[in-house]
Amino acid sequence: MPGEFDLIRWIQSQHKPSDLVLTGPGDDLAVLKWPANELLLVGVDQVLDGVHFDSTLHSPRAIGRKVMNRNLSDCAAMACLPAAAVATVALPRSVDLEYAKELYLGMRDAADPFACEVVGGDTASWEGKLAMTVAILGRSAGVQPVLRSGAKPGDGIYVTGPLGGSILGRHMTFTPRIFEAAVLVRKHPITAMIDLSDGLSRDLRHVCEQSNVGAVIDASSIPIHDDAIMASRQDRRIPLEHALHDGEDHELLFTTAPDANVPHVRIGTVTAEPGIFIDRDGQRAPLEPKGWEHAI
Amino acid sequence: MPGEFDLIRWIQSQHKPSDLVLTGPGDDLAVLKWPANELLLVGVDQVLDGVHFDSTLHSPRAIGRKVMNRNLSDCAAMACLPAAAVATVALPRSVDLEYAKELYLGMRDAADPFACEVVGGDTASWEGKLAMTVAILGRSAGVQPVLRSGAKPGDGIYVTGPLGGSILGRHMTFTPRIFEAAVLVRKHPITAMIDLSDGLSRDLRHVCEQSNVGAVIDASSIPIHDDAIMASRQDRRIPLEHALHDGEDHELLFTTAPDANVPHVRIGTVTAEPGIFIDRDGQRAPLEPKGWEHAI
Repeated sequence: MPGEFDLIRWIQSQHKPSDLVLTGPGDDLAVLKWPANELLLVGVDQVLDGVHFDSTLHSPRAIGRKVMNRNLSDCAAMACLPAAAVATVALPRSVDLEYAKELYLGMRDAADPFACEVVGGDTASWEGKLAMTVAILGRSAGVQPVLRSGAKPGDGIYVTGPLGGSILGRHMTFTPRIFEAAVLVRKHPITAMIDLSDGLSRDLRHVCEQSNVGAVIDASSIPIHDDAIMASRQDRRIPLEHALHDGEDHELLFTTAPDANVPHVRIGTVTAEPGIFIDRDGQRAPLEPKGWEHAI
Repeated sequence: MPGEFDLIRWIQSQHKPSDLVLTGPGDDLAVLKWPANELLLVGVDQVLDGVHFDSTLHSPRAIGRKVMNRNLSDCAAMACLPAAAVATVALPRSVDLEYAKELYLGMRDAADPFACEVVGGDTASWEGKLAMTVAILGRSAGVQPVLRSGAKPGDGIYVTGPLGGSILGRHMTFTPRIFEAAVLVRKHPITAMIDLSDGLSRDLRHVCEQSNVGAVIDASSIPIHDDAIMASRQDRRIPLEHALHDGEDHELLFTTAPDANVPHVRIGTVTAEPGIFIDRDGQRAPLEPKGWEHAI
């Protein structure tokens, strides 16, 4: 029967040496020569069967792409460039070596366009369901990383694309906004940024809390995705509700100086007073966070 | 009901700023200023309920310690010093916020003595079993990382401690041999090293394959742990078999120049001819790898 070392040997055969990676997959750790004068950004995200994907519906290739793309989207949110990644997979007993290879190839599908190398990992099989993680290393590439904490009163609030209804399929196929972020920070004074993974109403709250500011959103300006309209037909919640609260859009939400001329959709304004409000049909009301949060 | 953001806020409150970490937990990624002239080592390991621990027997504190210690042991195997880590946890619905905090505190128990900081992570709850991962960043700290691939014919083969029977409990409580490795590489020409996680017979094979060499082991010189003797009473396999094939000892196996005077137990010699053999009672026989491998 094939085992993890067959997989590791195959993965080693897929790896090409580079200036960054002195020792790739196959030792206890990978060895990297980190570029001088570049900050190192690091984070990790997981995908779990039944939560972030459904293994009875989604291919292993699509699952591998998603776990990598979730991490690449975090790089976009910080305006850094992905450089290297390590991954774990917990395989159910029911899958085979080809399935594991497809998970790996899915990660490579997502990472290769950004020259992000998969430099190590850990594979195990268990009596549980499929779980994958990717930890990502990003490099600052000559710009200061954009934090959630820099929004200033008067800043405009923007999003990079239409929102809502990603559960209809887009949550598996989104493109991380790495190039958009790289262009933005080089041309405009971006003060805070986050990727929309938990839903606009919740992610905007993260930015406001960490920046010690409030926000007013204009409901009529929020770009609604066609999927939000489709989803609304299914559950009778209005499309705006989907755009405000659905998770996993993976567009960027950012703030920038009042006079910036940014080629994205402005949806509101940062305020000095705490609290997040939405203006709708001439009325102002608090915007409650209804996005995704894992209960514990 | 408490949620992941309560946990994240609590974790943020546990974090102290440092020279290495410019932005710690709570943003999309952590931001680190990697020390100039230090190589960056990176890897990841997971622990899964029913494979690496048993959640009905082991405390969350012990589980958190183990997942961190597995990664710290990889740092020992490369002779680097751990600097920072990120973690994921997939929580079953049955556990609460206090349980999640204990997992975190277990990781800190293991990491703090080495000044290794937990700088980020990802928490989710699901209908599955408990799964944790840690990805670790190590720094070369002025020495060349020790790979598996450097063993030379004539080198002595050594281990840092007695082997076998870790399943009786030591697999949850081992101490990663970071200090031992740091001393070794500064005093002796260590040519290859690995930590014994899959069992001596299998891990020695990794070293030999990656170094393109063979090995002869002297059975009488292998240090047998008391736990191997205990285990042998339970399953009637002789203690030597446990010492040769049991996994998760997390002692170091290393090779060094023939004339090195190393304060550890020598168990054999590297050979130019491929193949791994064991001398026992005047007879030489192939040493088959019976250690741990996840079937896929």
